[in-house]
Amino acid sequence: MGPHPAVAAIRLAVRRVLHDILRDALVLSDGRTPPPDTIPRDIAREGGADGPLVLVACSGGADSMALASALAFESRKLSVRAGAVTVDHGLQPGSDQRAAEVAARLTAMGLDPVESIAVKVGREGGPEAAARDARYAALDAAAERHGAAAVLLGHTRDDQAETVLLGLARGSGTRSLSGMAAVSGAHGRYRRPFLQLDRHTARKACLVQSLPVWDDPHNADPAYTRSRLRHEGLPALEKALGKGVVEALARTAELSRDDADALDAWAADADPSVRDEAGELLCKKLYALPAAVRRRVLRKALIDAGSPAGSLFARHVEEVDRLITGWRGQRAINLPGRVEARRQGGRLVIRQS
Amino acid sequence: MGPHPAVAAIRLAVRRVLHDILRDALVLSDGRTPPPDTIPRDIAREGGADGPLVLVACSGGADSMALASALAFESRKLSVRAGAVTVDHGLQPGSDQRAAEVAARLTAMGLDPVESIAVKVGREGGPEAAARDARYAALDAAAERHGAAAVLLGHTRDDQAETVLLGLARGSGTRSLSGMAAVSGAHGRYRRPFLQLDRHTARKACLVQSLPVWDDPHNADPAYTRSRLRHEGLPALEKALGKGVVEALARTAELSRDDADALDAWAADADPSVRDEAGELLCKKLYALPAAVRRRVLRKALIDAGSPAGSLFARHVEEVDRLITGWRGQRAINLPGRVEARRQGGRLVIRQS
Repeated sequence: MGPHPAVAAIRLAVRRVLHDILRDALVLSDGRTPPPDTIPRDIAREGGADGPLVLVACSGGADSMALASALAFESRKLSVRAGAVTVDHGLQPGSDQRAAEVAARLTAMGLDPVESIAVKVGREGGPEAAARDARYAALDAAAERHGAAAVLLGHTRDDQAETVLLGLARGSGTRSLSGMAAVSGAHGRYRRPFLQLDRHTARKACLVQSLPVWDDPHNADPAYTRSRLRHEGLPALEKALGKGVVEALARTAELSRDDADALDAWAADADPSVRDEAGELLCKKLYALPAAVRRRVLRKALIDAGSPAGSLFARHVEEVDRLITGWRGQRAINLPGRVEARRQGGRLVIRQS
Repeated sequence: MGPHPAVAAIRLAVRRVLHDILRDALVLSDGRTPPPDTIPRDIAREGGADGPLVLVACSGGADSMALASALAFESRKLSVRAGAVTVDHGLQPGSDQRAAEVAARLTAMGLDPVESIAVKVGREGGPEAAARDARYAALDAAAERHGAAAVLLGHTRDDQAETVLLGLARGSGTRSLSGMAAVSGAHGRYRRPFLQLDRHTARKACLVQSLPVWDDPHNADPAYTRSRLRHEGLPALEKALGKGVVEALARTAELSRDDADALDAWAADADPSVRDEAGELLCKKLYALPAAVRRRVLRKALIDAGSPAGSLFARHVEEVDRLITGWRGQRAINLPGRVEARRQGGRLVIRQS
């Protein structure tokens, strides 16, 4: 008898990502690119006994415990070394002890190395952003220290749906709807094998494997936007729109990411063609671009001039765009980061003061 | 003392759209294009005494009653003739009498012609879609009959937000997130002056002008998806994400529309370059396109071959895309409308059987 369907599903998801990692590792070591349809068996052989190290980031929650168990299982069948990192955010009393327990469970799964890292969470950008920044800094450092080829993250399709809704609330367009990438970070370090898997499957896989899981009280705390979304916003949307909402949001993320990538590429391509020899932007040439491309060229120019990407909103870019599309002799426009944009002699002049 | 701010807001919104209509009418009559920054006064003069007819579609609800009142007021100051149409869907007992009442109110506002049109709502596509189809058919016919230059629709920013969420639930990407256009239909017949105005402002404008409004019981009926969204889904999202959600959704619609337009243009441009002399699609050239552009080329090719746009989902196009990006000798793929796609000798062959 094979494994429970939930266990089979988490293992398949991890196996696919390990194949990708092995394929990428091959390219890096000998410069040869295996074709995308290389048979997994060939890769496993090529990898050799001393294969790349893959770490799993594990909070002890159901998603990442399921991920750790699948990594431990699949790595034995491939030439991959598998380790784990758990981050102690120090935000609750006893968090250090809990981190030690999680590390012990990861070691018991056969993962090696296993590291528990205590971080200090700052305040920048709110509690959720500060915890995330501290966590990724610790994971980056651990990956460097151990020479890991990849770090697996346990984000599920439900997390993705929440991320899309958070992006929607920003109202800043296609890029902000593209959620989390399956592969991200420097050299594609971070991988999210469960991005197409639902939370329920991960939890079920823990249950049938008798893996104890820890429920972070933050996940149920209505002080956190994501928690409110998870427990109130999304269920209400599902009630109104039907059960397929999470899947639809996750698909929206994928499609939006591809769309945003294509339009960014178009804007990068168009950029030199709308400038004069001195590199100044020409209003007439900007006007001829499709609005979606023009706004991306403008946004990039504003950021290059020193406006911080995080503070530059769609409405700022729209206001600058009106210097091109709705010119009625407006004054210079002041933008975040002391950047100023004005129209002058058919040129759009962008300067930081 | 000027008008109440809500009344000023609805009038400004309508005035802007009337200016656009006058500008477009000028182009149509003498072939000359007035520059986009033409001063409204000049347009008003140019229009002459026998200006274009603008109809308002009015259900008797707050949004469209506010719209009708603003059209009646603003048309007197411009050379625009203003009329109205109310559609009796015949879905509730006494709907004919209500339509007659609405028509009487519209006439009392000074609108002329005013027409009440009874339609027969079918069943195709569910009750909401069937009612909409019958309504637009009646409005199209009325516009033709009266030689109207435009038909104004009372959709507000709140309606737009709901439409974006309905599109999100389809999970079919950027185009489905782009909501309703400010200008749509043949020759840009339909205009939505209130797309950036909230429902509350329209209601307030009716109240301070002592305009009686009719609340369609369908709008509160939980059997309708849009009604559930309005009364449960959106409020829950606002509670989780904050009050700016409606505005963010409306901005998402605008940005998504521009993005979708640009990518459609790119795909149309790329299409001939990925075909051989016989017009067959070349897999190698398709592979080199960005995913977002390639999928649009494929979708268009499938529709051109006879697959109905409404039944062709993102997952269908993705499956065809895998013939290009993940070729492992797959069989032919069967698509809606008896269309078949298969890879053969480096070509993607799409045929209807």
